[in-house]
Amino acid sequence: MSGAERALTAEDLAARLNGSLRHCPPNRPISEVRPLEEAHPGSLSFLANPKYAAKAQASEAGLILVDSKTDLGERAVLVVENPYWAFAQSIAWLHPEPMPDWAETPIHPTAKIHGRVSLGPGVTIGARSEIGAGSVLHPGVHIGDDCVLGEGCELFPGVALYRRTRLGKGVRIHANTSLGSDGYGYVLVNGRHEKVPQVGWVEVGDEVEIGACVTIDRGVLGATRIGAGTKIDNQVQIGHNCQIGEHCLLVAQSGISGSTKLGDFVTLAGKAGVVGHIEIGARSIVGGASVVAKSLPEGSFVTGYPARPHKEWIETQAALNRLPRLMKKLKG
Amino acid sequence: MSGAERALTAEDLAARLNGSLRHCPPNRPISEVRPLEEAHPGSLSFLANPKYAAKAQASEAGLILVDSKTDLGERAVLVVENPYWAFAQSIAWLHPEPMPDWAETPIHPTAKIHGRVSLGPGVTIGARSEIGAGSVLHPGVHIGDDCVLGEGCELFPGVALYRRTRLGKGVRIHANTSLGSDGYGYVLVNGRHEKVPQVGWVEVGDEVEIGACVTIDRGVLGATRIGAGTKIDNQVQIGHNCQIGEHCLLVAQSGISGSTKLGDFVTLAGKAGVVGHIEIGARSIVGGASVVAKSLPEGSFVTGYPARPHKEWIETQAALNRLPRLMKKLKG
Amino acid sequence: MSGAERALTAEDLAARLNGSLRHCPPNRPISEVRPLEEAHPGSLSFLANPKYAAKAQASEAGLILVDSKTDLGERAVLVVENPYWAFAQSIAWLHPEPMPDWAETPIHPTAKIHGRVSLGPGVTIGARSEIGAGSVLHPGVHIGDDCVLGEGCELFPGVALYRRTRLGKGVRIHANTSLGSDGYGYVLVNGRHEKVPQVGWVEVGDEVEIGACVTIDRGVLGATRIGAGTKIDNQVQIGHNCQIGEHCLLVAQSGISGSTKLGDFVTLAGKAGVVGHIEIGARSIVGGASVVAKSLPEGSFVTGYPARPHKEWIETQAALNRLPRLMKKLKG
Repeated sequence: MSGAERALTAEDLAARLNGSLRHCPPNRPISEVRPLEEAHPGSLSFLANPKYAAKAQASEAGLILVDSKTDLGERAVLVVENPYWAFAQSIAWLHPEPMPDWAETPIHPTAKIHGRVSLGPGVTIGARSEIGAGSVLHPGVHIGDDCVLGEGCELFPGVALYRRTRLGKGVRIHANTSLGSDGYGYVLVNGRHEKVPQVGWVEVGDEVEIGACVTIDRGVLGATRIGAGTKIDNQVQIGHNCQIGEHCLLVAQSGISGSTKLGDFVTLAGKAGVVGHIEIGARSIVGGASVVAKSLPEGSFVTGYPARPHKEWIETQAALNRLPRLMKKLKG
Repeated sequence: MSGAERALTAEDLAARLNGSLRHCPPNRPISEVRPLEEAHPGSLSFLANPKYAAKAQASEAGLILVDSKTDLGERAVLVVENPYWAFAQSIAWLHPEPMPDWAETPIHPTAKIHGRVSLGPGVTIGARSEIGAGSVLHPGVHIGDDCVLGEGCELFPGVALYRRTRLGKGVRIHANTSLGSDGYGYVLVNGRHEKVPQVGWVEVGDEVEIGACVTIDRGVLGATRIGAGTKIDNQVQIGHNCQIGEHCLLVAQSGISGSTKLGDFVTLAGKAGVVGHIEIGARSIVGGASVVAKSLPEGSFVTGYPARPHKEWIETQAALNRLPRLMKKLKG
Repeated sequence: MSGAERALTAEDLAARLNGSLRHCPPNRPISEVRPLEEAHPGSLSFLANPKYAAKAQASEAGLILVDSKTDLGERAVLVVENPYWAFAQSIAWLHPEPMPDWAETPIHPTAKIHGRVSLGPGVTIGARSEIGAGSVLHPGVHIGDDCVLGEGCELFPGVALYRRTRLGKGVRIHANTSLGSDGYGYVLVNGRHEKVPQVGWVEVGDEVEIGACVTIDRGVLGATRIGAGTKIDNQVQIGHNCQIGEHCLLVAQSGISGSTKLGDFVTLAGKAGVVGHIEIGARSIVGGASVVAKSLPEGSFVTGYPARPHKEWIETQAALNRLPRLMKKLKG
């Protein structure tokens, strides 16, 4: 997705974004947008919050978008009014989404079918996608461009894989589930929610099973990842850039907001919710219809809204049940 | 949808519904069913609840379905045992749904494709539908009859638009979302849930983005409306006749019951729920997994179940956490 | 699904499962796996929990999987380390899923279309499936092998019926809903979630309406059943082997875990949840966003999390609202 042919100079970016370069040679080539911690010298990155200044200092990014209140000393920065909006625009310029490459035939001539694969009627496979041997694609499965499916996958009717989705071996996905839809990212500019382009992808490990009507968003820039052996029930929602560990159980109608990490063997019971940008330690259990708003250490067992240690939740519920009587008594 | 050729007389209706006309010429032509506030002299309307009698008095409706306990003075009424059931039956008679008009070809010969449009394999477009220039329809998108898509729309695999759906310009809809399914309307008659026919449609403003596996029901009679610039995340459910303002944010797995109105710039956080027939004032915020059961003024910020002002919710949760200790102390 | 040609002897099973036969002739033919209460002399069954020993004693099962701690006296048992895992493996051996039987044509030559049926473009119908007269299948509907649809069904775009689904008369199913996906059943073996094969089906009674993006899992072995006249709203999830009564109302985004039974005329309000393996008595009402964790008698009305009688819930919420003030007062 990067490459000198698509690079802009720091000066070009400054002009387009109406910003001011500091400590940066104007002709420095910038070919991609990346988060601070994954940035290279050819990367543009951005500092959303001054409290992460240390992270910015440690980053290899060739240029960092900041607002005028942020001081990063000698680091090469591009000072703009709204760094997040500048970040969104830069993604659009440096990572433009190609138009889908549809052929006359439902299976694109450049798709590669390995070994014996069973294809139902109405299956479409995009350009350059590869289907592993022994896979079964039921009627109406739609595989986008540049996808890779491992051996022995089974996709049921109506499954949609957006471009660049990668499935390991033996992955089963049930009807009308989609992987790779755009994450929910907008920035408010002049009273409108402007889109933060979502140009990443979804990666699914071996032996993962995913239920029906599940939605997994692709990463903003990199991957949303589902670890090997994880089992996802129907109607689960997973936001952009989530990193789900191995052998997790995500029960029906649970949901995880963007950029959250789950360790291995985490269980979310039915209808549980987890906010974005937190970490749930390995082997934790979140009770049904509970909402986790803070990171949890390994082996946690939490329940309620907001989720608290299960024992505490039991105690508060018991106390709550006795409360009306207590109040009457105190009045009397 | 209306027209003299399909009209029934007031007398015909009375006979079919086994009801009695009051203050109404028997040959008055009735050509459509409409809510009291939108009714015309050729409209049949109904009074669900005697407390709305003033609304009925003010209505232009040519005929109003009422029960025998309701007195609307000199207004033309049709007295029936069950006005809601009579209303449902009248919709079926006056607004019969046409059979879909499928041709041999997946793109109906009467469909109009404006300018250059990109169509994936397996796309179907119904009779008389129009697709705006620059639109991209991914594989397996199904557009019903009489739909209108503005310029530059992008619909991902498996999106289904029921008949008469209208999209503005630059609308993006993600995989396996459907617009225009029947609203959830039934009336209990003799121990069976009889269907209230749903014959309205869905209207979506410019620059709206809708996530994957979202469901938006069409109106019973008129439109379910999504205002321009609103952004809807994955797995959101919107009931029939909802009126969603402009630039709202409806986060994943939130749901809104029928006939509710949201002002502009309202935010529903993930898994939030809103009951039917209420109004949420502009710029209000509903916290994650919270349930709103009453109308809210502009600029509200509510949380919890039932939702209360956020500050109150914080206080009650803090108090709840200390409750078990308090109870021990009071006992000791 | 059973038959001598596929039977294994008790001895074969013992060898494959590395278990020990007790009180069972080694050559006893075992041709199917069934729950204790539905088992026949040719059935293999299993005892998950020693507290159900009486059920096991009463069962007609020809052989019962137990662990070494369980004593069923003179009953024919197969003692294994992990009866649930042995059960899962036995399903795979005795009830192997056939590969889908796709033809060159989207409508399989062996499918039977009764009377006049309206088929949209892109519809696929599997081998040996029967479509009742007067049915309407919209574009992109996918019917698996061996399905039966009664007269006058209407299926909207993207509906997927897995193999062996049975619909009564006049069933309407909205866009992108799927019936028959695998239930969520796994057994932890050596640090991996091994799949319990799901080989049952879904049965839907007459005049049922099902909304958009609904997911109904098939039974593990037998049927998941939806009673006649029941109305299911959008985005509802129903787990494997649930038995839903007649004329129930399941409102949007509600969910029911596996093996739960609902009596007739039960209402689940929006976003309600019900745990698995319980019974909700007829004419019960579960409030919006409430979670039912225990069986309920007929005519219950419960609300909250966990759900309690509605009146109690109202009282505890009122008390909770007054709690912060009470605490201040007690301090002062």
